[in-house]
Amino acid sequence: MSVITIERKILGKNDEVAEQNRNQFLQHKIFVFNLVSSPGSGKTSILERTLEHLAGTINVAVIEGDVQTDFDAQRVAKYNIPVVQIVTRGGCHLDASLVREALQKMTLTGFQLLIIENVGNLVCPANYDLGEALKVVVVSTTEGDDKPLKYPEMFRNASVLLINKIDLLPYVNCDLTVLKRNALQINSQLTVFETSCTTKSGIPEWCGWIIGKIPAK
Amino acid sequence: MSVITIERKILGKNDEVAEQNRNQFLQHKIFVFNLVSSPGSGKTSILERTLEHLAGTINVAVIEGDVQTDFDAQRVAKYNIPVVQIVTRGGCHLDASLVREALQKMTLTGFQLLIIENVGNLVCPANYDLGEALKVVVVSTTEGDDKPLKYPEMFRNASVLLINKIDLLPYVNCDLTVLKRNALQINSQLTVFETSCTTKSGIPEWCGWIIGKIPAK
Repeated sequence: MSVITIERKILGKNDEVAEQNRNQFLQHKIFVFNLVSSPGSGKTSILERTLEHLAGTINVAVIEGDVQTDFDAQRVAKYNIPVVQIVTRGGCHLDASLVREALQKMTLTGFQLLIIENVGNLVCPANYDLGEALKVVVVSTTEGDDKPLKYPEMFRNASVLLINKIDLLPYVNCDLTVLKRNALQINSQLTVFETSCTTKSGIPEWCGWIIGKIPAK
Repeated sequence: MSVITIERKILGKNDEVAEQNRNQFLQHKIFVFNLVSSPGSGKTSILERTLEHLAGTINVAVIEGDVQTDFDAQRVAKYNIPVVQIVTRGGCHLDASLVREALQKMTLTGFQLLIIENVGNLVCPANYDLGEALKVVVVSTTEGDDKPLKYPEMFRNASVLLINKIDLLPYVNCDLTVLKRNALQINSQLTVFETSCTTKSGIPEWCGWIIGKIPAK
């Protein structure tokens, strides 16, 4: 019971800072999403294909969250966009104050989109508001079609589901119809895209959805 | 076999309780490992292939940890072995007191091997001793070859690495040599097996290793 109380306090403080971040994003008219998934689902590859596709249309900035290493930031920086790496040193999720720290290292002026790539973890980041407009959850076909039922909180709190690595469907034990049905059973409001970072299938549709979310200046 | 479900109630002093669990395992001369990985790496499939392979040689019991659902316990129960399901209700790892609760629902007498399948999470379970002899970490080729460097704590605390889904190597961007080098750079003591639950490649070698760990009665 005492553990529950402590968690409420921490989340209370987190929600307060998240609200400050959100106000900052609104002031700058910047669309922000929080990209979440298991390790290895393809968050950074999605990010790379997205940056390629959006190049020259809108200005994008990125915050990278990782337990260790700045590998992902290095991958993203190649696309010549501003990126701040948060290393959590073992921490299992980003929180709003870490994002606030990152925001102090960057300027939002002139940007229309900020993508926050969370730590690879399908459990803990589900309940941490960073101030984003919405969460985008990635699940890959190689993980199996039962994941939405087994990790419901993340799918419940997300607005968009990217089903990634659809090029591997012929080789894995994953029924796309079942995966979608399971996801929509948890959250009927999910917008679903099927993507492959290898074939780039689904990337234009996903990027089209992003464009539609960019606020008018 | 019927499935018993336990839900999280209280947190104990983890290491103290882990030590009590460990003593219980030693008394019963039962070898216990804690199976950890990201969601979808194939822990339950590994478990199924292992149970098939070991059938008729040693007596195995299983504790299943999941955030929600008893899907994994249902899969394991088909092999006609005792299984206790722990549902953490959002909790991101098993702890020693949850395992102690599970142990109260089962008998260890006559068993030589207890497998504890943890919640799918490559971060949080790394630092929770459950009383096991050692941790076995599964990483699948579809997750990419950089995971040991990005999630070092789990690889540092594990004794065995199962590189799973090696049948998918032709279709994914993963260099097996790099993956192994990265893992051994974090922990040079790791015993490594390459497995596929589809082709069953590597399963006999992995099960041979288990057999070698079973204490003499």
